[in-house]
Amino acid sequence: MNDRDAPGLLSRFNAIRAHSLSLAAPLSPEDCTVQSMTDASPVKWHLAHTTWFFETFVLERFEPDFYPFDPAFRALFNSYYNGIGAQHPRAQRGLITRPSLDVVLAYRRDVDNRISALLARASPGELYDLVELGLHHEQQHQELILTDVKHLLSCNPTLPAYSEDAPAGAAQPVLSWRSFAGGVVEIGHDGHSFCFDNETPRHRQFLAPFSLSESLVTNAEYQDFIDSRGYTTPAHWLSDGWDWVKGQGLTHPLYWSRAGDSWVEFSLRGAQRLDPFAPVLHLSYYEASAYAQWAGARLPTEAEWEHAARQAPDLPYLFGAAWQWTSSAYAPYPGFAAASGAIGEYNGKFMVNQYVLRGSSCATPEGHSRPTYRNFFPASARWQFAGVRLAR
Amino acid sequence: MNDRDAPGLLSRFNAIRAHSLSLAAPLSPEDCTVQSMTDASPVKWHLAHTTWFFETFVLERFEPDFYPFDPAFRALFNSYYNGIGAQHPRAQRGLITRPSLDVVLAYRRDVDNRISALLARASPGELYDLVELGLHHEQQHQELILTDVKHLLSCNPTLPAYSEDAPAGAAQPVLSWRSFAGGVVEIGHDGHSFCFDNETPRHRQFLAPFSLSESLVTNAEYQDFIDSRGYTTPAHWLSDGWDWVKGQGLTHPLYWSRAGDSWVEFSLRGAQRLDPFAPVLHLSYYEASAYAQWAGARLPTEAEWEHAARQAPDLPYLFGAAWQWTSSAYAPYPGFAAASGAIGEYNGKFMVNQYVLRGSSCATPEGHSRPTYRNFFPASARWQFAGVRLAR
Amino acid sequence: MNDRDAPGLLSRFNAIRAHSLSLAAPLSPEDCTVQSMTDASPVKWHLAHTTWFFETFVLERFEPDFYPFDPAFRALFNSYYNGIGAQHPRAQRGLITRPSLDVVLAYRRDVDNRISALLARASPGELYDLVELGLHHEQQHQELILTDVKHLLSCNPTLPAYSEDAPAGAAQPVLSWRSFAGGVVEIGHDGHSFCFDNETPRHRQFLAPFSLSESLVTNAEYQDFIDSRGYTTPAHWLSDGWDWVKGQGLTHPLYWSRAGDSWVEFSLRGAQRLDPFAPVLHLSYYEASAYAQWAGARLPTEAEWEHAARQAPDLPYLFGAAWQWTSSAYAPYPGFAAASGAIGEYNGKFMVNQYVLRGSSCATPEGHSRPTYRNFFPASARWQFAGVRLAR
Amino acid sequence: MNDRDAPGLLSRFNAIRAHSLSLAAPLSPEDCTVQSMTDASPVKWHLAHTTWFFETFVLERFEPDFYPFDPAFRALFNSYYNGIGAQHPRAQRGLITRPSLDVVLAYRRDVDNRISALLARASPGELYDLVELGLHHEQQHQELILTDVKHLLSCNPTLPAYSEDAPAGAAQPVLSWRSFAGGVVEIGHDGHSFCFDNETPRHRQFLAPFSLSESLVTNAEYQDFIDSRGYTTPAHWLSDGWDWVKGQGLTHPLYWSRAGDSWVEFSLRGAQRLDPFAPVLHLSYYEASAYAQWAGARLPTEAEWEHAARQAPDLPYLFGAAWQWTSSAYAPYPGFAAASGAIGEYNGKFMVNQYVLRGSSCATPEGHSRPTYRNFFPASARWQFAGVRLAR
Repeated sequence: MNDRDAPGLLSRFNAIRAHSLSLAAPLSPEDCTVQSMTDASPVKWHLAHTTWFFETFVLERFEPDFYPFDPAFRALFNSYYNGIGAQHPRAQRGLITRPSLDVVLAYRRDVDNRISALLARASPGELYDLVELGLHHEQQHQELILTDVKHLLSCNPTLPAYSEDAPAGAAQPVLSWRSFAGGVVEIGHDGHSFCFDNETPRHRQFLAPFSLSESLVTNAEYQDFIDSRGYTTPAHWLSDGWDWVKGQGLTHPLYWSRAGDSWVEFSLRGAQRLDPFAPVLHLSYYEASAYAQWAGARLPTEAEWEHAARQAPDLPYLFGAAWQWTSSAYAPYPGFAAASGAIGEYNGKFMVNQYVLRGSSCATPEGHSRPTYRNFFPASARWQFAGVRLAR
Repeated sequence: MNDRDAPGLLSRFNAIRAHSLSLAAPLSPEDCTVQSMTDASPVKWHLAHTTWFFETFVLERFEPDFYPFDPAFRALFNSYYNGIGAQHPRAQRGLITRPSLDVVLAYRRDVDNRISALLARASPGELYDLVELGLHHEQQHQELILTDVKHLLSCNPTLPAYSEDAPAGAAQPVLSWRSFAGGVVEIGHDGHSFCFDNETPRHRQFLAPFSLSESLVTNAEYQDFIDSRGYTTPAHWLSDGWDWVKGQGLTHPLYWSRAGDSWVEFSLRGAQRLDPFAPVLHLSYYEASAYAQWAGARLPTEAEWEHAARQAPDLPYLFGAAWQWTSSAYAPYPGFAAASGAIGEYNGKFMVNQYVLRGSSCATPEGHSRPTYRNFFPASARWQFAGVRLAR
Repeated sequence: MNDRDAPGLLSRFNAIRAHSLSLAAPLSPEDCTVQSMTDASPVKWHLAHTTWFFETFVLERFEPDFYPFDPAFRALFNSYYNGIGAQHPRAQRGLITRPSLDVVLAYRRDVDNRISALLARASPGELYDLVELGLHHEQQHQELILTDVKHLLSCNPTLPAYSEDAPAGAAQPVLSWRSFAGGVVEIGHDGHSFCFDNETPRHRQFLAPFSLSESLVTNAEYQDFIDSRGYTTPAHWLSDGWDWVKGQGLTHPLYWSRAGDSWVEFSLRGAQRLDPFAPVLHLSYYEASAYAQWAGARLPTEAEWEHAARQAPDLPYLFGAAWQWTSSAYAPYPGFAAASGAIGEYNGKFMVNQYVLRGSSCATPEGHSRPTYRNFFPASARWQFAGVRLAR
Repeated sequence: MNDRDAPGLLSRFNAIRAHSLSLAAPLSPEDCTVQSMTDASPVKWHLAHTTWFFETFVLERFEPDFYPFDPAFRALFNSYYNGIGAQHPRAQRGLITRPSLDVVLAYRRDVDNRISALLARASPGELYDLVELGLHHEQQHQELILTDVKHLLSCNPTLPAYSEDAPAGAAQPVLSWRSFAGGVVEIGHDGHSFCFDNETPRHRQFLAPFSLSESLVTNAEYQDFIDSRGYTTPAHWLSDGWDWVKGQGLTHPLYWSRAGDSWVEFSLRGAQRLDPFAPVLHLSYYEASAYAQWAGARLPTEAEWEHAARQAPDLPYLFGAAWQWTSSAYAPYPGFAAASGAIGEYNGKFMVNQYVLRGSSCATPEGHSRPTYRNFFPASARWQFAGVRLAR
């Protein structure tokens, strides 16, 4: 792994931890405290939970005279680690008005100082590995901070902007296809740098020949689907998806609204006229699948996507524009074994009823993407920065 | 009505408006923003809504060149007045992180200044009446601020105190009875001072002879009910109450928890050892009714309570200790007519599926209680400062 | 009480028990088995439960060598008597395909024979009283059989008729008013014939002068309310009623449907063109209250209704056309005391969150109505034969 | 395909249609009418829907002068084919007391006669293909009849037997393993006989070496899991599974109940003492997965299972004992294309949020199993005859 000398790791630690704070900078303590739905978490909780991760999995293990910053935080900011103990209920994360944001920031400073002190004395090994894991974990939450704040602000009838400088979508070229020959290919991480456990072990799969689109589906293309009665034609939809779309009365993607004859999209820059050339975002798996069916194509499998990303790294928009739904249910790779202890709960126990997304989005922090990365969400999740690359 | 000269009304206006701020003083902006359940509202919302009331029903009507402080607030802080227009959904009041508390405080100052200016120029009449109504409305919300904050803080596993100086329950004497002869009596407000519309018209009712207890039911007495298997014996309960108590798995009042052999009660002063002599609080109507049944007594009707409060103003604990559930469903008095226009929605439309409480509680602001006052809540509401006076 | 010699009571017993069977005669075993919603019960259950009542409260008590017809029936056909023991869950009454209808009919014959044998040997006293109570209880379920079957058949898209001879609504005269002077009046049953416990004790109430309409609200009048945007104007509705009507998306009474420009009503005779002169039926309390408000009137209190029914027995449509919603919440009369033992659960425990209806309907069996009779249902119940008489 | 001369197909048609009736023979009309939960359907509905399938996809297409048996049945007995038109809501299938069972049996006879007449005149081609599909469809519903009736009868507190002759579980040998070398293998149906569309196209997959257990998990083995606190140890469970097991308060498989120190299992023969050597049945995917994790093994993928079934047809209990959960989410095979028209809704639209089961159960009709057959249910479904074969 690169940067695995102590100064290198420490400097990345400082940079990534600081980046979380910069994401919270445009927000008030009130913005940081509220939870807009059970799926989302308050920014304050994200800031505290990522800190709890370092405290629990690094400090508690490696500090000779460890003491918790606040014993109440052990349960309060535990997300889902049954191996660590009880958890504050997920749906009630927004009721935690105390500790205040100020106290959470002090918690971050305290843990940061103690991690820095540990790193200054340590050499590569398990401590390094866990700090590394904590940093990648923090980057996952950095994307969630933007994702969850976007949802919170969209619930406010005044549609406030998060920041005038928030990223906008990239223009997409016209639809064209890239072909791949398939065969027995290798899938999964090769082990020379950091990865999550769910990217391993590297293993062989057989792929039939396939093609991927060179662009992501655009807002204008998705508008065609809507205008062609896409949301009211059951034949395009998976059965569960049709029940979902009817049950919720949906007629367009999350964050879209009509303004006379045109569409407005709520973004981190506030309400914006819909950009026809930008990739469509915030689709559920059901919508992605229905669009692909309507377009006479299909979603790629995750193995196709990963193989293409390795074979054709010049394929546009692999990273940084939108997460790309695959048709693959999230499952363990052959031979996968979770780590022992609480840290083993990181990924394995979620391998049911979810679909894999590949690539990365405009909300993903710098340096937090790679061809083998597996993101995953339930088929109905629509508040993620998720779009579509077609396959056939 | 007393104090109906302009300086008198203005000085009361200033005092009551300032009292709302003093209730919020121990709270952070985060505490003021979060909504702990649909029944409760954020403190920030209470502060804004009471201001909206003056802006909508007084300024908009009497200011010659009225302009709204912020047009978005018209819907955002409308509670339930269909006659005024759309309302932000009640269950989503806690998602409003913006306007911030600071902006809401500025809103209050602006409206206060404008009301003061109007009062300085006006003479008694409808303007006075509406300001008066707004002040009593604000006092209702002052009690709700304490009630709702208590619920919010109780959801935090660290059980923070609202204030070390928050009121504690008064010691109760031993159970004794006061008899009343009944007959045709007059019920309802007599019209010489302020009252809400639901206290009118004054009318005659026939009462059979009855007795009321001189004390409110104490924590110790209620503990006897629990210890006598009160929560698991269906014969004590109304049928709906039994379904409710089983469905929710309840075994004690809200805010009580066991600590070894004794009980702890969450209060505005934080967690406290249960005071056996204080009146039991935070009962639902179902619990109040089951207790009375177990005790071989019954709840008073609201007419009995009001008649007793007038005939025997020395009856202890009529006011300031706990709201007292009556067995009377909330219904219009004979001849009741709601005011015309949106202001007529104040009380009348709630006259279904609720039960009347009489008296006032330790959370009721000074000067906001009288023998004819009718408070009302659904039979399952348990987060109010509500207790029991027995009848037979 | 009349007919309280053994032959008289036995002959009424035989007639009333036979009438239940005649109500089931047009139905198949399948029709008798299914439960269309939790509020309703299967006909087979009604036939069995009324038999269980005689078995449990008469045979078990008075037969020297009592044995149950089937021990499993003790819980299976217990409605809500906690004092008797466990109950099969109400929502699962429709899952009981066995015992079959044939077995339930055999159960009825067995219990009938044993009751007859007891009555042949007995003299007036508690046995007579309990048989009498059982007969009135059975008559209540006779109305429910028609009410619940109507709902079941209405759920079948083919809209089958229960019987071509089922009763139709009576023509209503033009709206006119009858005045009453009020004063201190006596309310409740006077004790010379059978009544339910909730009709006692007779007591005094004070009534202000009032008027009642001489007719019930007709379908044509209710259609005016619909055509005047009655279902979309919040000002007519109680707050809970408005939430209910919007939440359920209602625009007309249960069993009405549009057929081009006119209305069709599902009835026990199948789908019928709406009769403009018949009394409107199947209203909830919320709809009854909204109609009265729109019509510039109000619902009567139950005391007003009862006083009028006694003072003016010639008032049309008191009985036999439609139950008439009153504005009175169902509550115990002053001095009410439930009977001891399980039989005491008959009425008292339901005295919360319900509204009283007076009179009787076209589905009420002959001889099962009187001025003091108190029927009661929650404000949202609309599958009863319930209409409106106005007051002012 | 075998038997594709007219007499051969007709004789299979007659035999399979008659078998459905024989499954209903032990049941009363009442048993056949009731729906015990939304997932299950009434037997009468199964009998009618399989008939509707022949009427809609064969008679309507091939009869020159087609007329429906009853036009109302088009929607009433349509399961989920949007291409055919509206459907009676699934949750309300149990409200259809009319048509009676007698009428449904007449419907079957009428359609049977008309299909026989068509077959007598026809030669192999699309008509044959659709009749063939209808027969396999009917066999699927034959298993569902037993599955759904078992659930219905289990809801009756008297626990009636379906039949004293219903099949019992086969004794299982001791756990031993069979190894397979893997490599690039062919998966899917080869096209020489009938299969469902979801079994095609045949395609290549790469398999790492693996082993399968030679027996299915037994009741005694599963009891060990329960006794080792299997239902209360989160580490064994997928995250969704843990939420499910806690949310429903489950502590054992469906149909098991404790009787003192031992276990009783409700079966089609009524309540029976649990047979320790029989395969455990009625597990959800969550329970199957938790058991495998506890046992230090895993569930097979569907490709592993199919490859093993072809390579080692002597592997015990492949068919006829219990459906076997695989770890494979139900997804289209590479190159899968649904048929056009309504018939194309048969399988494709369900390929989301479900897991594949392989093999067949004691409730599967004779001749309705093969190595490529893909059964599928959501992870929480537990009323199917589903057990576990381990892999590693």
